[in-house]
Amino acid sequence: MSVTAAQGFEAAGVAVGLKSTGNRDVAVVVNRGPLKVGAAVFTSNRAQANPIIWSKQVIQDGVVEAIVLNSGGANCFTGSFGFQTTHQTAERAAELLGVSAGDVLVCSTGLIGTGDEVFRGKVLEGVAQGIAELSADGGENASLAIMTTDTRPKRSVISRDGWTIGAMAKGAGMLAPGLATMLVVITTDAVLTSEQADTALRAATHVSFDRLDSDGCMSTNDQVTLLVSGASGITPDLADFTAALTEVSADLSRQLQGDAEGASHDITIVVRGAANEDDAVEVGRSVARNNLFKAAIFGNDPNWGRVLAAIGTTQAEFDPYNVDVWMNGVRVCHEGGPDAPREEVDLSPRATELVIDLLTGDATATILTNDLTHDYVHENSAYAS
Amino acid sequence: MSVTAAQGFEAAGVAVGLKSTGNRDVAVVVNRGPLKVGAAVFTSNRAQANPIIWSKQVIQDGVVEAIVLNSGGANCFTGSFGFQTTHQTAERAAELLGVSAGDVLVCSTGLIGTGDEVFRGKVLEGVAQGIAELSADGGENASLAIMTTDTRPKRSVISRDGWTIGAMAKGAGMLAPGLATMLVVITTDAVLTSEQADTALRAATHVSFDRLDSDGCMSTNDQVTLLVSGASGITPDLADFTAALTEVSADLSRQLQGDAEGASHDITIVVRGAANEDDAVEVGRSVARNNLFKAAIFGNDPNWGRVLAAIGTTQAEFDPYNVDVWMNGVRVCHEGGPDAPREEVDLSPRATELVIDLLTGDATATILTNDLTHDYVHENSAYAS
Repeated sequence: MSVTAAQGFEAAGVAVGLKSTGNRDVAVVVNRGPLKVGAAVFTSNRAQANPIIWSKQVIQDGVVEAIVLNSGGANCFTGSFGFQTTHQTAERAAELLGVSAGDVLVCSTGLIGTGDEVFRGKVLEGVAQGIAELSADGGENASLAIMTTDTRPKRSVISRDGWTIGAMAKGAGMLAPGLATMLVVITTDAVLTSEQADTALRAATHVSFDRLDSDGCMSTNDQVTLLVSGASGITPDLADFTAALTEVSADLSRQLQGDAEGASHDITIVVRGAANEDDAVEVGRSVARNNLFKAAIFGNDPNWGRVLAAIGTTQAEFDPYNVDVWMNGVRVCHEGGPDAPREEVDLSPRATELVIDLLTGDATATILTNDLTHDYVHENSAYAS
Repeated sequence: MSVTAAQGFEAAGVAVGLKSTGNRDVAVVVNRGPLKVGAAVFTSNRAQANPIIWSKQVIQDGVVEAIVLNSGGANCFTGSFGFQTTHQTAERAAELLGVSAGDVLVCSTGLIGTGDEVFRGKVLEGVAQGIAELSADGGENASLAIMTTDTRPKRSVISRDGWTIGAMAKGAGMLAPGLATMLVVITTDAVLTSEQADTALRAATHVSFDRLDSDGCMSTNDQVTLLVSGASGITPDLADFTAALTEVSADLSRQLQGDAEGASHDITIVVRGAANEDDAVEVGRSVARNNLFKAAIFGNDPNWGRVLAAIGTTQAEFDPYNVDVWMNGVRVCHEGGPDAPREEVDLSPRATELVIDLLTGDATATILTNDLTHDYVHENSAYAS
């Protein structure tokens, strides 16, 4: 059901030839209200695609009527022509929906540097076709239309006391904090103000999408959007809502990790004993971005030396010679020296857990990443994205 | 000739079974004087191997009699037993050479976390055997003994007005600034004080080894050492000497890049038009560490969007929508938009040049890196190092 699980939303996903496969490639999600609240977070990459530049303006007043998303082209570094394409996309949707273009978000994903007249024509056609096909059970098609190298759609739904959160996501490569090549649309029929929506969304992404670092590469097009219809008429406790939103975000993060390009291991890096949370995150990210560690995991090699070498490059507070490391439950390094024999570690399961204890403080953080595989190299050398 | 090209040096490289292949694995280089000047730079990784901890003490007074290097084990994260191994290595060499142990540098390379009694025994045997075989043409054997996954030895010699610089290096993976899994020994018979040697070495490494970033992974064992015998009796102009030392260092950097694990492209990233040198280096490194860009080059795909996406993650001063990018001489991006068709770029040669013009200032920097290939993944998943 994805984005149409919550009351007050309609969606569609249509195929207009942006994807050479003929699969669905334009999604539209419309908020039928009564509230038209929206909040969004964007990539922190300074190189930002035209839809990001546009959507950052749209979100400022906290009012969103609809969101249009296309795969098959990132519309990034396509100059003023590309920006006009985004603008026209919002204008077309607004015209057909009878709303203001300034309340229509746009997201794009695909190859950077492409976005010509043909691209523009197809996107505009997709907007018209999508709006014509809008329905209260269009969430599944919408979740299919935003896929690129994803092998499966990512959807998540959670229901609480009378209100629901539904969501869809795409992303399989260029997954890194701040955020990933990730488009996420989350809808809810709970009653929230735009300030509450913004606060809850930032809190949820901070500990979920922002801690997924598949390949260390930060996208130009990332956007996570929360749309609030208030159609349930129920005003939840903000802490309860934030907890549920975090659960949905964490679920989608795991789904994104599980479908990362070419990955053969989903690696959960738990850093504990840190002086503070920032240190824990820095240490986790440093390991998550270490190609030698990632290649070792691919080879089922519990090479904890590479973990310590990665930690050593950080500014975090700790003593490099007083660190414990566990791999899949086996403590391979104790106080900076060899502990259990590496042969005791079984890295054959896809789910891999690395625990690093900095033995310094009480703070902890979890970073999700993947291994570095032949298939990752293959997909990203043979497929232009 | 490598380290024995300059007058006043003797060297040896012997095989004591640290390498399973039976190849040479312990090298000794001795300075016969008359000067016994030494300077060294070390990895900036906070996780430092025992030989690094030891050598940092030795180098403080600027006096070095000899250096012992072993492959087949990094002696890192091996606890106090490992430190004693390094200490005993220096002691044994000092005893046999009739010098102080405090003037003997030690370098190790190989798998992190190993360094048991067997390892110690072999290294000590290698010291004795190496010192017994010292000769004025032992430089070649020494350069073979420090190889790990290197497919060929790296040597460089330069002669100026009556004085000579000779050098050897090893390194094929974990190449990243500050420095790489790189052991380098440079000798000269020029007359220099320890301050001059230190100044010249830092200046040379700053623009050579420090700008080689093969895989973004920083080693625990890097060391670049300059030994000065003064045997030529000639005192060069310091600027001339620094220039020659930089030339040798740049030559070795190119050799390290050309033999990087699994690489199929040697990528030279020239950043120009930067506001200052630090910005140029930050931009170059960001691109050099972007796995998507590196995989694209492996696939001969001139994916300049990934270059801009990598630049966008930096703090450098520039306008993301006003950047020019050339690949092998073709300007594929002009002022942040598409320029020449990507089909015009020929990425089939191993030598690849990426030029980024930030169109902001006059500063420039060059970073050397490699592509991300199947063979890189294979070597680093199947080979524990």
